[in-house]
Amino acid sequence: MTIAADWIAVDWGTSTLRAWAMSHDGQDLASASSADGMGQLTSEEFEPALLRLIETWLAEDTPTSVIACGMVGAKQGWTEAPYAATPCQPQSRFTAAPTRDPRLDVQIIAGVSQSEPADVMRGEETQIAGFQRLNPKWDGVICLPGTHTKWVQMSAGEIVSFQTFMTGEIFALLSTSSVLRHSVSGETWEDDAFLTAVDEAMSRPEALAARLFGIRAQDLLHHLPPASARARLSGLLVGAELAAAKPYWIGQSIAMIGAQELCDGYAAALVAQHVPVTRTDASQMTLAGLKAAYATWKETQ
Amino acid sequence: MTIAADWIAVDWGTSTLRAWAMSHDGQDLASASSADGMGQLTSEEFEPALLRLIETWLAEDTPTSVIACGMVGAKQGWTEAPYAATPCQPQSRFTAAPTRDPRLDVQIIAGVSQSEPADVMRGEETQIAGFQRLNPKWDGVICLPGTHTKWVQMSAGEIVSFQTFMTGEIFALLSTSSVLRHSVSGETWEDDAFLTAVDEAMSRPEALAARLFGIRAQDLLHHLPPASARARLSGLLVGAELAAAKPYWIGQSIAMIGAQELCDGYAAALVAQHVPVTRTDASQMTLAGLKAAYATWKETQ
Repeated sequence: MTIAADWIAVDWGTSTLRAWAMSHDGQDLASASSADGMGQLTSEEFEPALLRLIETWLAEDTPTSVIACGMVGAKQGWTEAPYAATPCQPQSRFTAAPTRDPRLDVQIIAGVSQSEPADVMRGEETQIAGFQRLNPKWDGVICLPGTHTKWVQMSAGEIVSFQTFMTGEIFALLSTSSVLRHSVSGETWEDDAFLTAVDEAMSRPEALAARLFGIRAQDLLHHLPPASARARLSGLLVGAELAAAKPYWIGQSIAMIGAQELCDGYAAALVAQHVPVTRTDASQMTLAGLKAAYATWKETQ
Repeated sequence: MTIAADWIAVDWGTSTLRAWAMSHDGQDLASASSADGMGQLTSEEFEPALLRLIETWLAEDTPTSVIACGMVGAKQGWTEAPYAATPCQPQSRFTAAPTRDPRLDVQIIAGVSQSEPADVMRGEETQIAGFQRLNPKWDGVICLPGTHTKWVQMSAGEIVSFQTFMTGEIFALLSTSSVLRHSVSGETWEDDAFLTAVDEAMSRPEALAARLFGIRAQDLLHHLPPASARARLSGLLVGAELAAAKPYWIGQSIAMIGAQELCDGYAAALVAQHVPVTRTDASQMTLAGLKAAYATWKETQ
């Protein structure tokens, strides 16, 4: 059985490449993924990496449209897709990637930039567009927890402003590569310790770097269990982020897009602040966003 | 020519082992160092590592006293030297390390712990004791910049309270292992960018995690030079620390012990806050502290 894709949707991040064979009416006929993330490839290696994954879906006689989002459009990616500047619709620019194979027509969705305070996103704009497609006329704030968590203010279908926090990356570095790794090992988790730490950090966010070392000291002196230590580390970082992002969430209803486990923490912390949170499925938002991009792209042809 | 040590001073940290052959009147006759840091050794490997470095200094007929400070006394070290608890003199406990070679009598200086807020030090207590030996009757605050920077309140010869910040370790992780590594490469440094960032972080310390990603975004969008980016990263982290450590330095005169380059930044930031800073030589403080420990140890025999 062969798959004949009418077009192909691609989510190409730093560590993973995912593709879907799509029909004209928006059904995903097949999907595939590989570890050929943007971080592992030089610019010449993108086309072969894509072909390895999707070659069997291509027509022989006419180019198949490939719509891609994510770090594939970064300076170190396949080709640089210049940012669209806020305020803008989430998917307002496309950049053609250079290809040798005549069966490919690859379009990369531009990321979004904000000049002041300087900020950038690549990939999240597509999840945002997917959320908009599924929730038309929606205005408000979207939180996208991740390695680099984004808070995004939407109005009248446009990204008005956004702010990125390195919380996820800092958690990963501290829990695996700092002195704290001895105290937070394992995957266990204690909800109470998380929420207590969120509270502490929100009420005195400037004490973060001191409280972080305190996790190690509490382990050495008072035998803090790893499940509490791990949840406390995350809670301190998320609490400091919430203190800084307060203008984004105070008095708002928040839509959240991201990995389940990560969103659990953010949602619990926000609900404790009496902020209503609407959870969504991140993969579904990505695919809906790629469909939205394909529709926008077709209109301009 | 052979060296006959009356006793041996040892500074044994996580990554480096340093030793001095000492005479009874406090002169250092010779010194040696190796990369046999505590982090590289199992508990059985400490004695051979020490012997490799100092065997030629030992008398054959009588044990030579070896006084050691630092992570050698940690749980993962040669043997655990239980902490002395605040308030206490900086060097109030010694723990004998188990040895096989009859020419060795190894005493490890205890670190200092504080129960609430939980905190610990190992090694810094010896630099503090060295500073006290050279500045008797001195009261006030000592700042020890490092991987884990310590702020220490001294009174009447005792450590009253202290607080540890992970600033140095976080800088190292972010500048070498996070997305910021692309923007802060090289060793260049711009003083103005550092002091501006200190000011920004002190006035709104909770925004740290957002301002950190801003360094990457400013590079991508506005071509922030690496010298500015690197100084800005350090300034944001030091500024957040100064905001949290304010109770330690406000209205105080500060004595500073640490590596020259690191202290330059802290001192510039404090002087900008009109805080007078007295700089000291870290190696000199360590050796003076080991001499103080030897004197204390001899008194108890």
